Amino acid sequence: MNIYDISRRAGVSIATVSRVLNNSPHVSENTRKKVMAVIEGTGYVPNAFARGLGLNTMKTIGLLCPDASDPYLSQALTYLERAFRQQGYDCLLSCTDKALLARQQGVELLKSRHVDGIVLMGSSFIEDDPSENDYIRDAARSVPVILLNAAFPCDNVYGVQCDDQRAVNEATLSLLDSGCRRILYLYHSRNYSGRKKLTGYRDAHAQRGVEVDEKLLCFFDQDKGSVHQVRDTLLQLEKDGLCFDAVLTSEDILSVGALKYARAAGRRVPEDLSVIGYNNSSLCACTEPELTSVDNKLFAICEHIVTTMMGVLDGKEMPQKTVFTGELVKRETTK
Amino acid sequence: MNIYDISRRAGVSIATVSRVLNNSPHVSENTRKKVMAVIEGTGYVPNAFARGLGLNTMKTIGLLCPDASDPYLSQALTYLERAFRQQGYDCLLSCTDKALLARQQGVELLKSRHVDGIVLMGSSFIEDDPSENDYIRDAARSVPVILLNAAFPCDNVYGVQCDDQRAVNEATLSLLDSGCRRILYLYHSRNYSGRKKLTGYRDAHAQRGVEVDEKLLCFFDQDKGSVHQVRDTLLQLEKDGLCFDAVLTSEDILSVGALKYARAAGRRVPEDLSVIGYNNSSLCACTEPELTSVDNKLFAICEHIVTTMMGVLDGKEMPQKTVFTGELVKRETTK
Repeated sequence: MNIYDISRRAGVSIATVSRVLNNSPHVSENTRKKVMAVIEGTGYVPNAFARGLGLNTMKTIGLLCPDASDPYLSQALTYLERAFRQQGYDCLLSCTDKALLARQQGVELLKSRHVDGIVLMGSSFIEDDPSENDYIRDAARSVPVILLNAAFPCDNVYGVQCDDQRAVNEATLSLLDSGCRRILYLYHSRNYSGRKKLTGYRDAHAQRGVEVDEKLLCFFDQDKGSVHQVRDTLLQLEKDGLCFDAVLTSEDILSVGALKYARAAGRRVPEDLSVIGYNNSSLCACTEPELTSVDNKLFAICEHIVTTMMGVLDGKEMPQKTVFTGELVKRETTK
Repeated sequence: MNIYDISRRAGVSIATVSRVLNNSPHVSENTRKKVMAVIEGTGYVPNAFARGLGLNTMKTIGLLCPDASDPYLSQALTYLERAFRQQGYDCLLSCTDKALLARQQGVELLKSRHVDGIVLMGSSFIEDDPSENDYIRDAARSVPVILLNAAFPCDNVYGVQCDDQRAVNEATLSLLDSGCRRILYLYHSRNYSGRKKLTGYRDAHAQRGVEVDEKLLCFFDQDKGSVHQVRDTLLQLEKDGLCFDAVLTSEDILSVGALKYARAAGRRVPEDLSVIGYNNSSLCACTEPELTSVDNKLFAICEHIVTTMMGVLDGKEMPQKTVFTGELVKRETTK
């Protein structure tokens, strides 16, 4: 018996069940009776309801993270953990690799630990093939699920994200408008967010009537995107005759490699080459010159995830999708 | 009833109880009978024994981490999680701040989730005041506890660490032996490991007959150790007349700040100023020039923690304290 079963048996939405459990005034007496009858007809009180019914819960949120060493996710982990703790909630992290089975098992592990809600960290949890997202749908029948930087239309699933497509679009436009015409794009993810970014890059070129040379799109395997490998790849591309007057990257670390290339090739930044990173991470202040980057509002996203989770657990109506707008933070690698 | 209670009631060591549970041949029939009588006399089977008794456990290790955004701990988290997963164990992370109560609660949270063992990440878990370490002693009565980069003499507690004192000692000696005489030491932790490092710095000076100028020891609050704050502090120290010909830091990020200072002050690295970091983190390849740093063997430490935990859970006799030796990795910031 879970919130989904109760809503189905009572013939009302999950949100309505939540409202009943929280004595919301926005429920008719008739509906309230119908829902309570279903709940009382079952001996079992699912954990997700315990709070609403005034019982003690473990007050724990499960975080599922595909790679805790990824700087973006590691930062998110810290923000989320602190903000949940301020609300009196502990966090249990389960790491997983990106294989479907591992993600399903990660969700099962968290459910078996009776968490009050689950946060799926990063857009790699959403697949194009709808059947591969069933595990999210299943999880959402027991507990609220919040997606960090993704969206998924499903009851009891909430998405909080940055508009990566728009952010990369604006970064690309700023390069085009400063006179750059051949913008090398370095990326190392083809997931949901990765594809949005690439679309932003392409759209900007279309908007300014500049054709995209496909040779300027340069994919790095996650394991092969080290600073020195990026530097060496760019040196080789230059040797092979590829011209580029700017580098835009889907992650700051790839931009660090581009700066290494510029130094090795004797190109001045930003005079001969503009460079823009993504994430506005702590790396940006470490390079020389310091890196212009897109702030993708991770802190605000994490705060909002916690607000959303608390709202859902309190039976409030919360938005299913929230989108933040990124912002280009100019430092020394752009004109 | 826990392993400690059973060993006490049976009048044998915890290791002996473990051996009994694992049908080790190194236990006399008499001892085996005594231990099993105690266990069978109790209805309750503590989780830590379940595996030894052939029952199913949750196969989960609890990781307690004071700050998941710390690059050293975040890297450790990834190594540990992967290595435990390869052994068929899931990891549950609980974050905590450094206050004693928070750490106690973190341990309690993990215990309430029936983990098979606990890893305390980082030396900040050990306090000088012995009474403040009672929570570790308590935890070790239920499950094995392994300390990452710390040691604590107590039954069922295991420490795996790097000899930070020796590593900093050798880094300091290498600077002194290259002709440096005024080595600025930047640090931002006064915990167990932090104090060991400082001792290594002082000892090296004593070994070479160089007096330590206390003005060269520069503490940065965790929140005030940003790259630009370090740069500005060093510029101010120079303006105030402090002379230094090398910078040694307790964390790589502080060295990045020192490199920013050198650039702002027009000092050439390594010709006018040598710089050595600590952790040999991914930052080292991002700076210009690239940073010489002490590799504190985090990967080997994490692998060994997992080996130790698996051994303990299998009832094997494992070393209570394991010490790795750091290694100076020379890059471009030293002569």
